[in-house]
Amino acid sequence: MQKPLILISNDDGITAPGLRVLVEEMKLIGEVIVVAPDKPQSAMGHAITVTLPLRLKESFIFEGVKAYECSGTPADCVKLALDKVCPRTPNIMVSGINHGPNYSINVIYSGTMSAAVEAAIDGVQSIGFSLNDYGSNANFEYCRPFINQIVNTMLNNPLPYGTLLNVNFPNTENIKGLKICRQASAKYAESFDERNDPNDRKYYWMTGVLINLEPDHNDTDLWAVDNDYASIVPTKFDLTSNGFIQHLKHLFV
Amino acid sequence: MQKPLILISNDDGITAPGLRVLVEEMKLIGEVIVVAPDKPQSAMGHAITVTLPLRLKESFIFEGVKAYECSGTPADCVKLALDKVCPRTPNIMVSGINHGPNYSINVIYSGTMSAAVEAAIDGVQSIGFSLNDYGSNANFEYCRPFINQIVNTMLNNPLPYGTLLNVNFPNTENIKGLKICRQASAKYAESFDERNDPNDRKYYWMTGVLINLEPDHNDTDLWAVDNDYASIVPTKFDLTSNGFIQHLKHLFV
Repeated sequence: MQKPLILISNDDGITAPGLRVLVEEMKLIGEVIVVAPDKPQSAMGHAITVTLPLRLKESFIFEGVKAYECSGTPADCVKLALDKVCPRTPNIMVSGINHGPNYSINVIYSGTMSAAVEAAIDGVQSIGFSLNDYGSNANFEYCRPFINQIVNTMLNNPLPYGTLLNVNFPNTENIKGLKICRQASAKYAESFDERNDPNDRKYYWMTGVLINLEPDHNDTDLWAVDNDYASIVPTKFDLTSNGFIQHLKHLFV
Repeated sequence: MQKPLILISNDDGITAPGLRVLVEEMKLIGEVIVVAPDKPQSAMGHAITVTLPLRLKESFIFEGVKAYECSGTPADCVKLALDKVCPRTPNIMVSGINHGPNYSINVIYSGTMSAAVEAAIDGVQSIGFSLNDYGSNANFEYCRPFINQIVNTMLNNPLPYGTLLNVNFPNTENIKGLKICRQASAKYAESFDERNDPNDRKYYWMTGVLINLEPDHNDTDLWAVDNDYASIVPTKFDLTSNGFIQHLKHLFV
């Protein structure tokens, strides 16, 4: 039987340690193809490159794995991979492991999740993996058995079109288990750090703290990760707020 | 009574004709503040700038309107505007008018919509406006009365936290009316145009055609705009696919 084809990308770039762990785990399950950005692309949201051409360059940093670095965004990587690199439609696409959590509202800003969303739009089931540690020396070891379980489960029970998974791991060696969650309502309390450059002109550094708007609810991804569970949120790219359609019809008709 | 404060941004940049039309219309309704990108930022998705500082520069291109051009993405513009520019919380934020449609899956890639989403996350009700014409000489005149109606309606009936509006106009002088819709399921059929540079190295231009995956349904934004209606889709940034939570609990527990 043919091994499953697994496409991998990320947003931290092709040299990121989190990507290497994901490649190692996926090699245990199937045939792996990597198309990842040639430089970090964090917080790129679902950007795509429309005014510049894209480059693809073969990379040999993963033994026995076909890999390419791409000059574009994570979403560009997936588009190019599916159109120009993959010999057949992948059985699954996985993204990450991201250095830093993509739970709650982070899903909107995340390049890691945008790669997974792009695959899902193109009809390839997908999963984004992230660890709650921004460090380049983050320890991804404890994520491995969970990643293996989740990917195997989804290969055996493919998701229908329109849904993907957003998986976030706590930064602990004692992960209590998997928890199916919803996206927590949260927002960043921004405060821009205002400084003057040597020519005495102002510039601003964005800083911010994530505020959980529903800290008392234990069914959210933010609660799960804060309490040492790995969270799985079924995620969609149909942004329609169906509950408001009738309300708006009354307002406008 | 104090006039409503209206924050405006876009993704085509501060000099875009579509922004000027929106500014003119909003001046009829309230006090206007503009913070828009200093260069085009189309297809930026929900990118934010985390590795560079941001610049704000006062602009005088709109008579009687406080305006700034910002070096960042549309989402950056809104974050900076709310934290550093606006003297009080705006009553509404409007984005656009975008040169090109942001219906269906375009909402995921759109910088115009990311600005509106950012405002909504920060608790300011918001609307993204787009016209189904990519040209820099697009004719926005026929959108004006509808924009006026929609903004006044929302000022009198504010949306609760978590929902914003995605409005798309057809490119016609005979707009049939407003239609409340859901986001159409559609995807781009990409085909990368592969070329060789003067050094004989390959590069790729992204091209693609939007494919409506449900052309027979008349309740979608794509159908509405194709049939000369202005579409209004209630849009949310909670991406949880609630219908799959039970299914996943069965798979993983």
